[in-house]
Amino acid sequence: MAAKQRRMVILTEGQLNIWSAKTAVSVMRYCPDEVACVLDSKAAGQDISKLVGTGKGIPVVATLKEALAFKPNTLLIGIAPVGGHLPKAWKKLLIEALKSGLDLLSGLHEFLNEDPDLAKAAAKAKRKITDVRKPPDDLDCSENIAKNVKAKRVLAVGSDCNIGKMSVMLEMNAEAKRRGWNAEFVATGQTGIIIAGSGMPMDRTISDFTNGAAERLVMERKNREILFVEGQGAIGHPAYSAVTMGLLHGTAPDSMIMCHCPTRKVTRHVPTEIPPLPFLIDLHEKIAGLVCSAKVIGIGLNTFEMSASDAQKEVEKTETLTGLPATDVYRYGAEKLVDAVEKFYGKPKKAK
Amino acid sequence: MAAKQRRMVILTEGQLNIWSAKTAVSVMRYCPDEVACVLDSKAAGQDISKLVGTGKGIPVVATLKEALAFKPNTLLIGIAPVGGHLPKAWKKLLIEALKSGLDLLSGLHEFLNEDPDLAKAAAKAKRKITDVRKPPDDLDCSENIAKNVKAKRVLAVGSDCNIGKMSVMLEMNAEAKRRGWNAEFVATGQTGIIIAGSGMPMDRTISDFTNGAAERLVMERKNREILFVEGQGAIGHPAYSAVTMGLLHGTAPDSMIMCHCPTRKVTRHVPTEIPPLPFLIDLHEKIAGLVCSAKVIGIGLNTFEMSASDAQKEVEKTETLTGLPATDVYRYGAEKLVDAVEKFYGKPKKAK
Repeated sequence: MAAKQRRMVILTEGQLNIWSAKTAVSVMRYCPDEVACVLDSKAAGQDISKLVGTGKGIPVVATLKEALAFKPNTLLIGIAPVGGHLPKAWKKLLIEALKSGLDLLSGLHEFLNEDPDLAKAAAKAKRKITDVRKPPDDLDCSENIAKNVKAKRVLAVGSDCNIGKMSVMLEMNAEAKRRGWNAEFVATGQTGIIIAGSGMPMDRTISDFTNGAAERLVMERKNREILFVEGQGAIGHPAYSAVTMGLLHGTAPDSMIMCHCPTRKVTRHVPTEIPPLPFLIDLHEKIAGLVCSAKVIGIGLNTFEMSASDAQKEVEKTETLTGLPATDVYRYGAEKLVDAVEKFYGKPKKAK
Repeated sequence: MAAKQRRMVILTEGQLNIWSAKTAVSVMRYCPDEVACVLDSKAAGQDISKLVGTGKGIPVVATLKEALAFKPNTLLIGIAPVGGHLPKAWKKLLIEALKSGLDLLSGLHEFLNEDPDLAKAAAKAKRKITDVRKPPDDLDCSENIAKNVKAKRVLAVGSDCNIGKMSVMLEMNAEAKRRGWNAEFVATGQTGIIIAGSGMPMDRTISDFTNGAAERLVMERKNREILFVEGQGAIGHPAYSAVTMGLLHGTAPDSMIMCHCPTRKVTRHVPTEIPPLPFLIDLHEKIAGLVCSAKVIGIGLNTFEMSASDAQKEVEKTETLTGLPATDVYRYGAEKLVDAVEKFYGKPKKAK
């Protein structure tokens, strides 16, 4: 998937808003050059940036025929419908897309490859269906070797799930590249994998192989200078901590960025109290250290719900509390966190 | 499986030794009343207790026909062959067993139910094939509700995998029952599940549902007075920590027994240094406490490789080091650890 230059039509049919079309919005924000157009008969012709706050200039069209005029090679399912199932009405369109020469890219729970009609149409048209949520068949147990590679490993951890760990790593990766690092963002969840064009759906691995799946992500990228690994869940999240643990030990980070949302007091989906940051930082270092020594070197704050002045105060308060550099990458950019990376590891080999 | 009284013929064909026939040995030790005979043409007629140190009086026979004379209703695969695959030569025998009215019980990686010939033979003979390693299809995320049940939850944790956590819980469960507790051993691995007749193969769950799978074990037994939950892996094991974490948060223990082998300096399978016990105890309490407050209340030592006097010294040394009661349940019984349980929770409702 990574080898071919993608040119995507993003299907959001009737759901082009920031909540339903989260995948579409993230892809438009982080891969604008790979988006040919959006297919949505309800929003056709509208200014997309006014609808979802990103994607300025990307055309919205009403039909597949119109979309094909923009010469896409891939159709991305841009929404996450309730239950993760493919709306029945869409299947006909997807078969048409395959017949028209498009590959399909999907993060749905329901695997498109397992639909006999779609699989048949893809085979006939010699097109590829990629279900990013499907893990490889040949995963195995971790051998504890990620810690031995030369690639530096920065892992996003957090005080909760859905707190912005992916965005922090994407922004840090972009900033590191600007400074000359041979860097790569390493995706561990569906949206990240669609953005990066590769990665591992960590939450769908067999538990015995969860650490091993994370390890593989590092081993496949061992010749990079530095890796920014997307986090998943949280060590303190009652439902997702197994996934988080596998990622933490499997990738064997030597540094971590702690992501935190100051306005959130309990964890999402399954509420439990979020402990104070200094406790969480110490705990993450102790747990990681069972396998590979690792330091939390900076704090990524999510101040989305705060005023500008409150956000600024929160940054200062967090830095005093933890003794670590803190910032909100959306408000202030990722410079401060990449400064922390360079303080910890030194400058890149080919610094710009 | 639990409802019907099992009467098992254990198949070990040519591998009746304590290494290859670990499943057979554990079942003979903990469920002697459910074992009709052992089927092994190479060991037929021999004194089984001399071969594997347990199972005194259990007959070893050479053929299925002889085994049927002992009126079994189930055939248990008693070995774990390399790779977890069923030896080809055994299939014919298993089909014969089904035809003769036996259910099949297997902990192999390779699911017998997925072999078309075996599935067909089972359907025809109206017999059941149970693959204990296959998790239920309807697992889901944890809702963090195990902590709310009245059943007390004791979880075995450890400084490593393969350290005796299952045995410690089985012995504690038996001792608690003797004292009048309405207790249940909760199995989380293949051998434990075969012994208990129920449980959850924690290492084969989808990672997103690992915590939820552990939670289900508790919810299905919420009306018990006390649960002794078999541990899996170790928080500090580089390959298995995701499974351990899911079990720790999903079952929401209020007390833990730390299992430790003093002669082991690095973890098994994938070596990494084992930290000192006081550090591990504190770390387990902190990690568990993210979801539900839990105390380590005793130490289960594995002194298998030590002399009697060294073992005794180790018990005293461990108690001084940790301030907690310590014992080796195989050498000295589980009384001391169940005393610790009663000190922590009080006496059972119907104390004997």
